[in-house]
Amino acid sequence: MSLTKKNIPTVTINRLCIYHRCLEKIIEVEGKEESIFISSSKIAALTGINSAQIRKDLAYFGEFGKRGIGYPVINLVKELENILGLDRKWSVIIAGAGNLGKALVRYKGFQKRGFLIKGIFDKDPLKIGKKIGHISIYDVKELEKFIRDKNIDIGVLVVPAEFAQEVADKMVAGGIKAILNFAPLRLTLPPEVKIHNVDLSFEFEGLTYYLNLC
Amino acid sequence: MSLTKKNIPTVTINRLCIYHRCLEKIIEVEGKEESIFISSSKIAALTGINSAQIRKDLAYFGEFGKRGIGYPVINLVKELENILGLDRKWSVIIAGAGNLGKALVRYKGFQKRGFLIKGIFDKDPLKIGKKIGHISIYDVKELEKFIRDKNIDIGVLVVPAEFAQEVADKMVAGGIKAILNFAPLRLTLPPEVKIHNVDLSFEFEGLTYYLNLC
Repeated sequence: MSLTKKNIPTVTINRLCIYHRCLEKIIEVEGKEESIFISSSKIAALTGINSAQIRKDLAYFGEFGKRGIGYPVINLVKELENILGLDRKWSVIIAGAGNLGKALVRYKGFQKRGFLIKGIFDKDPLKIGKKIGHISIYDVKELEKFIRDKNIDIGVLVVPAEFAQEVADKMVAGGIKAILNFAPLRLTLPPEVKIHNVDLSFEFEGLTYYLNLC
Repeated sequence: MSLTKKNIPTVTINRLCIYHRCLEKIIEVEGKEESIFISSSKIAALTGINSAQIRKDLAYFGEFGKRGIGYPVINLVKELENILGLDRKWSVIIAGAGNLGKALVRYKGFQKRGFLIKGIFDKDPLKIGKKIGHISIYDVKELEKFIRDKNIDIGVLVVPAEFAQEVADKMVAGGIKAILNFAPLRLTLPPEVKIHNVDLSFEFEGLTYYLNLC
């Protein structure tokens, strides 16, 4: 059975992101030689993901490895970046100029990874017209037009929960393709809009297992 | 070969967190009846994780399921909460009263999940002595003593990268057991201190795969 790319499970995609990070670290340590290969069992040892699973995940997208030799690291990184869309720039807007919105605008990791913040939106007249770093704060009333005119790819929702659905609807009306939602509620969105709900408390949960053993 | 709990791979622990969330959603929808069972193949369909992997992950910790019937949902949630340390309260301090630090203090999800923020630390004299919500901002000089006196479990690092190692060292000196690091650098820590590096750009990366298909 062949899977179309749209049917590939989200967890497979998430694992591809993990393989990509793992290979980036290998390049940091071992350099960018084209002759460096890595076996699925080495990736398994570094990521903790079963090597059969790794081979299966990668095989969805092509035959990247050579039996008995492994995967060419540099080439596999490029293939993964292409598959994951990490080799291009993405336009992002942030809805909500509160503390989290401000923190995200100043977060250096986004630009480095190709996520370019084009504007921040709020309804507070005291904030509208000001800047955070070199990014302007616009009236949330302009959100829909801004997304359409500037062809924005991703909207980040950091408004209070009670306004989240309303602001998400504006994003959808403007033609947003994906929403990263930090608000603690499930949004109702048309199926063509991709959503990722962020729960920061999840970041703690891996740690508590180990603390529990102490 | 039996694994001691300390040797269980981090990705297994991360998957247990995913199963836990999945079961919580099932309880939300289906209620808290003790008679509700779920098969590993149903968990697989909901999480996208292979059912053999699910059975293997859970079998590290005990025989929770019945062949041909599945896992009792309520009981498995309780077992997972016990394994993951999610059935107790954890004391947390935040180092860095910038935008991200302020946002984390106000983040409602933490308290709900048992992560209780006991203080926030900064070196800015204009911030020290003020409050964010009902949490006081203390001088970072008091960090070590505070951690020791209040028996703090987890330190959250949201200081600029250039101060992160220095502040982490203070946390370690105070006896912190785990650090959640938002600063974009690798910290050098003694092996007994558990670290989790947060990279918020990772949250975007699953989305771009789908955008890339458009």
